[in-house]
Amino acid sequence: MYMTQCLQRILQQEPQRIATVFGDRRQTYQQFGDRVARLAGALQTLGMAAGDRVGMLALNSDRYLEYIMGVWWGGGVLNPVNIRWSVPEIVYALDDCNTAILIVDEHFAALAEGIRKTARQVPRFIYAGEGEAPVGMLGYEQLIAQAAAVEDAGRGGDDLACIMYTGGTSGFPKGVMQSHWNLWSACMPRMVDMPPIRDGRLLHVAPLFHVAGMARALIQFLAGESHVLLSGFDAGEVLRVIERERICETLLVPTMILSLLDHPDFDRHDLSSLKRLTYGASPSAGEMVEQLLARLPDLELSHSYGLTEACPVVSSNLPCNHTLAARRSGLSRSVGRGGLGVNVKIVDPQGHEVPRGTVGEIIVRGPNIMQGYWNKPEETARALRDGWLYTGDGGYMNAQGYLFIVDRLKDMIVTGGENVYSAEVENVLARHPAVAMCAVIGVPHEQWGEAVHAVVVLKPDAQADTEQLRLFCREFIAGYKCPKSIELRDALPLSAAGKVLKRNLRQPNP
Amino acid sequence: MYMTQCLQRILQQEPQRIATVFGDRRQTYQQFGDRVARLAGALQTLGMAAGDRVGMLALNSDRYLEYIMGVWWGGGVLNPVNIRWSVPEIVYALDDCNTAILIVDEHFAALAEGIRKTARQVPRFIYAGEGEAPVGMLGYEQLIAQAAAVEDAGRGGDDLACIMYTGGTSGFPKGVMQSHWNLWSACMPRMVDMPPIRDGRLLHVAPLFHVAGMARALIQFLAGESHVLLSGFDAGEVLRVIERERICETLLVPTMILSLLDHPDFDRHDLSSLKRLTYGASPSAGEMVEQLLARLPDLELSHSYGLTEACPVVSSNLPCNHTLAARRSGLSRSVGRGGLGVNVKIVDPQGHEVPRGTVGEIIVRGPNIMQGYWNKPEETARALRDGWLYTGDGGYMNAQGYLFIVDRLKDMIVTGGENVYSAEVENVLARHPAVAMCAVIGVPHEQWGEAVHAVVVLKPDAQADTEQLRLFCREFIAGYKCPKSIELRDALPLSAAGKVLKRNLRQPNP
Repeated sequence: MYMTQCLQRILQQEPQRIATVFGDRRQTYQQFGDRVARLAGALQTLGMAAGDRVGMLALNSDRYLEYIMGVWWGGGVLNPVNIRWSVPEIVYALDDCNTAILIVDEHFAALAEGIRKTARQVPRFIYAGEGEAPVGMLGYEQLIAQAAAVEDAGRGGDDLACIMYTGGTSGFPKGVMQSHWNLWSACMPRMVDMPPIRDGRLLHVAPLFHVAGMARALIQFLAGESHVLLSGFDAGEVLRVIERERICETLLVPTMILSLLDHPDFDRHDLSSLKRLTYGASPSAGEMVEQLLARLPDLELSHSYGLTEACPVVSSNLPCNHTLAARRSGLSRSVGRGGLGVNVKIVDPQGHEVPRGTVGEIIVRGPNIMQGYWNKPEETARALRDGWLYTGDGGYMNAQGYLFIVDRLKDMIVTGGENVYSAEVENVLARHPAVAMCAVIGVPHEQWGEAVHAVVVLKPDAQADTEQLRLFCREFIAGYKCPKSIELRDALPLSAAGKVLKRNLRQPNP
Repeated sequence: MYMTQCLQRILQQEPQRIATVFGDRRQTYQQFGDRVARLAGALQTLGMAAGDRVGMLALNSDRYLEYIMGVWWGGGVLNPVNIRWSVPEIVYALDDCNTAILIVDEHFAALAEGIRKTARQVPRFIYAGEGEAPVGMLGYEQLIAQAAAVEDAGRGGDDLACIMYTGGTSGFPKGVMQSHWNLWSACMPRMVDMPPIRDGRLLHVAPLFHVAGMARALIQFLAGESHVLLSGFDAGEVLRVIERERICETLLVPTMILSLLDHPDFDRHDLSSLKRLTYGASPSAGEMVEQLLARLPDLELSHSYGLTEACPVVSSNLPCNHTLAARRSGLSRSVGRGGLGVNVKIVDPQGHEVPRGTVGEIIVRGPNIMQGYWNKPEETARALRDGWLYTGDGGYMNAQGYLFIVDRLKDMIVTGGENVYSAEVENVLARHPAVAMCAVIGVPHEQWGEAVHAVVVLKPDAQADTEQLRLFCREFIAGYKCPKSIELRDALPLSAAGKVLKRNLRQPNP
């Protein structure tokens, strides 16, 4: 088993099918496969040996997909760099796993100087952006034009496929080691639960360096279907592309979906091709789901729970649980059940399984679970125990095995000896008609140890004061759970995946 | 990844779902899981250590499914014995891989004496049939009643899961080593291509010792759905059970399907629950498909090509290729395209890929391909070369990657220097209205080396003489392909999988 096999399969069966559409560029799988085999040859010529890491620091494009398949075809290992990172973070991730080649596009070429100055091992730069390659960089198109196509190196199975550095919402970056088996096993349950739509074009908006975006891209390759790529999110452009390219599926975070719904052109576009939408789980998704289904009632919605260490999907809540009845019963707030091959348990701090309905730590076992953290045996031993991944996420399971996330355990607030799950408070705040986004954190408090603190972004024309918001909370949850303080802001700091960066919120207000 | 994980998953999510229905017995997954964990405990008490083989020689029943899961749960390896075999063949398969425990039912208990007399290592017998255990055998139900439930041993991944002895249509039995990864990887493509039907009851008619029956059972476990079992094929009983149990899916060989269609009660039963039917590929399937779709036009038909060494499915031809248009174009005669993760190539005797449309040997690579033959390094080296399984089957591939089987290569007839594929001749004969079944083989001939010889079974009330049949062939195929001799018989020797045993036909007529 090796991830490039799916490309070989399409080349054998449907070489004339469209592989990628990016702006004015569109290519068949025949063309894509030829470029992949040449890119693999070029990388080998530049010294990439079996198992060597190659990074990419770029927005989404057709070339990002060529990078994924080309590195594997040539026998290498991916290191997709987080585009939100500062130079020191990028350098950390490159140095940590000896990434000798880095592909950059025009949006990130300017970071090369800083990387050169500080990296222990300065990578070879390949410029995959528009226009001429800057001085000191090799041109991506020139390399492909000059290289000979090579045979698929055929690395697979337990061989390392990708090192994906986690960061953003939690501490120091750790290189998550994902094997070919891991990635394949992660794609299969999703493909069984939501079988590929024949001739179904996927729109990539979520960034490909992120595990969710990449896994979805791999499923599209496995299905042998077409990719349409946008370099980033722009509500108007997303609506135009869905109509123009007859997009069937896409993956969005709730904030993006809300932007689409608020866009003045929403109703002017023919969005009838859109059959499925996967959204990242979020505390405030409930209201978004209602709005979305009110406008596009036939849309199949699903959302998933996952993490980079699980490549990423642990569980998915499927369209059948987004019906009106499921929304009323609360089942739509679940993140679904453990997928095919994936075991999920809720355990207490001693690692013992807790009764159904009791909150504890979510632990996961399955063929999709990472091999470990690169060069970090202690962190690996903490995360992987007896084959189980300890996620650090809090949740509970109902009698039918449906999983409900309550919080990151470290986001749990302990106030006056009581546990408060920030997600529960956020769920309440999000239901207030004036609230666009919110985040709840614990802040140090002399008397209570921690106090519940809320940061709220109001909707553009909405008005509410903090006292009204606190009273609103009190209607639904116990007093000790209600925010002791509420702060109104214009925006929340978000990760590339659209998650609120609570770490940043906890820092002093800039 | 371990195959028992799917059972754990059902026990967590849907313990009250019906697991098995066999005659008057029906049990939930809760009950099934409890019996599996006890059977595992009993086998361990009898000495089954991790990786030890346990055989079963029995017709289909709920206990056969308990055997499959129970042996794995306890850490053992399956050796499902071919029910058509003679004592010497059975003893060979037991001795070859040191099978120390053999479960038998009432239909095969009488063979124990012969096994005891000739086996190098006499196995412990467990009697899983009706009534009291014969002297010298342990009682299956007593063992389960007395045993303590044990934890899942959790063997999986590349660990050996099953040794399945091939035999019947070709030479000396060889123990095909199938790992947990092999079996899982074999199930996944089928589950993506034909997603599980929710609350879909599967009827087991095909024998569970055979790879096709077992793989289909595993898919049902993975889907977490219900099994209904018949000990064997009886057309009237199959029709009654489909109606009574609201069966959604089943797997049958064409001869069984023809029996159903010919049954006087066919139209008296409500078969509306039957959504899908998978049939084993067969030269004479075309006519069967037409008859079947004429009677049940909404039925989703698929057929697969596979072999024990591929666990078993290589390719599947899906319902979309059984439409009227696909039948007219000939696409329904294909066995489909290589499944997810499965590479298929057609090669010449030197191992080079041949152009599309050219007949050659089918070779296959993928995570479903066996680990090798037990204790047979030379046979393994011949079958597995550079990771490719050489199937010994002849076929060609069209421009879209659709695979067409022409023959077992050794069933190819060389007459006067010309290659004749027996399947081509059989396809023509099968179209004659009087022909029920036929098989074409090569027989020694002084002048031509081999001569084409046909063995034909006529339909009950049909009449045709051999000269009429030969003239019929001549209308469609070249003279050198037409049978030089035709023999009429009352029946053909069939393997348990419903394949004609050509080896037996080549032996002197008894």
